[in-house]
Amino acid sequence: MTRQELINLIYERRSFLCVGLDVDKKKMPEHLRDAEDGVFLFNKAIIDATIDYTVAYKPNLAFYEAMGIEGLVQLKKTMDYLHGLGKPVFTIADAKRGDIGNTSQQYAKAFLDPEGDFNFDALTIAPYMGADSVQPFTVYEGKWVILLALTSNKGAFDFQFLPVDGEKKLFEQVLETSQQWGNPDNMMYVVGATKADMLTQVRAIVPNSFLLVPGVGAQGGSLKEVCKYGLTNECGLLVNSSRGIIYASNGTDFAERAGEEARKLQQQMAAVLK
Amino acid sequence: MTRQELINLIYERRSFLCVGLDVDKKKMPEHLRDAEDGVFLFNKAIIDATIDYTVAYKPNLAFYEAMGIEGLVQLKKTMDYLHGLGKPVFTIADAKRGDIGNTSQQYAKAFLDPEGDFNFDALTIAPYMGADSVQPFTVYEGKWVILLALTSNKGAFDFQFLPVDGEKKLFEQVLETSQQWGNPDNMMYVVGATKADMLTQVRAIVPNSFLLVPGVGAQGGSLKEVCKYGLTNECGLLVNSSRGIIYASNGTDFAERAGEEARKLQQQMAAVLK
Repeated sequence: MTRQELINLIYERRSFLCVGLDVDKKKMPEHLRDAEDGVFLFNKAIIDATIDYTVAYKPNLAFYEAMGIEGLVQLKKTMDYLHGLGKPVFTIADAKRGDIGNTSQQYAKAFLDPEGDFNFDALTIAPYMGADSVQPFTVYEGKWVILLALTSNKGAFDFQFLPVDGEKKLFEQVLETSQQWGNPDNMMYVVGATKADMLTQVRAIVPNSFLLVPGVGAQGGSLKEVCKYGLTNECGLLVNSSRGIIYASNGTDFAERAGEEARKLQQQMAAVLK
Repeated sequence: MTRQELINLIYERRSFLCVGLDVDKKKMPEHLRDAEDGVFLFNKAIIDATIDYTVAYKPNLAFYEAMGIEGLVQLKKTMDYLHGLGKPVFTIADAKRGDIGNTSQQYAKAFLDPEGDFNFDALTIAPYMGADSVQPFTVYEGKWVILLALTSNKGAFDFQFLPVDGEKKLFEQVLETSQQWGNPDNMMYVVGATKADMLTQVRAIVPNSFLLVPGVGAQGGSLKEVCKYGLTNECGLLVNSSRGIIYASNGTDFAERAGEEARKLQQQMAAVLK
């Protein structure tokens, strides 16, 4: 999906919501836990209930890998369902990959290749290994790298805020250096919402790039703050909510409740997009 | 595998060689490319030919993921074979994972859990997200985190050498800070062999930790240099070679040639261990 197509989708659906499909069997409704294709059926129900309020879905690979190969089968079924839905939607593999150049090429093939098992629109990437670990992800037409800049966890303070080369913080250096590896048409950034005031600093370096903001909801971020500091005149934001939506209920009404929660966020977003 | 068991294995087999099982179908012998279970059969032949000269095998996940779900089935067969071999060997998932705490737990389960599909001894981890992204990998008894400190690629210069907080370089800060997250019994470090002189700086911070050194061979590292600066009185090194061994030939003699290349490295290592 190109940048313009994503922007159009956001304004059509009046939403910049990304739903994190981080499926943990222990948190799933009991009737699906041991069902055949239970994880896929869970995702399908969530997707059906939220698609009209959502522009992106973001499965975190860790949750699928934790179920072994069967987990990846469930993920493939989910992606096949999204691709066959007839409603456009942006798909993000939250995989935080990154390796030396020729190996990153293999990861790019795994997640972004249209002929591959998954065919995601975008993939999250860790920046530590630098240019050649990131660039192989930018060669697929209409596909995206989403580079970790500022994450929303406690450990973010260990390295990301260290001053490098004098005044700049490491996450600012990552934003700056990575401008040479991609552009706002093929590179976004992860910026943790629990530090919304930091968004000003981020926007000073990447005024036009899309930001993927995790952590609204369970991780404590405030949508209002995020919009205040992060919104551009082309939106420029994808705001993720995972647990707050997909585990809104663990009863048989889980999908209905997920839809309600997604709709609440969408309405707030629609107001902001006016 | 505990630290002591690993050290014993190194001195018994008189080797600290790690063979990188980075299987790319395009580089495999033609007769196996389209064979059923061709990737597993390739790995099995390589393992059979090299096990007596090797203490560790390191599949890089990217190469398996690039083949889709079928690639992970081949990896599982490879791991099942290694576990059933009756000869001890250390297994490393070169996956460079890392995520917020509760998500890293899922990755730990995916790769290290004895009940899981793979049951690796160790997993490579990217440090960018800090403490809570790394610690969940240290809770499995006898299992290991291998943290990226200094990588062997060109992009390593983008961030890893940046001076942070004054004099220290980022990779030195990673080595230092991560001492609080683990210890030499459950944490190793990736240190790129193409910068062997840097090993002195690394050893000043982590005198007793095992180092996983990639890049001897195809990536241009010198075994002699690595040993000169990196060896401890308990060895403290795992030196990886991938392409130089597994693609020594792409003919029907590939396994035999892989064995020869592994043996050459083992003999150099045996001389150093004396």
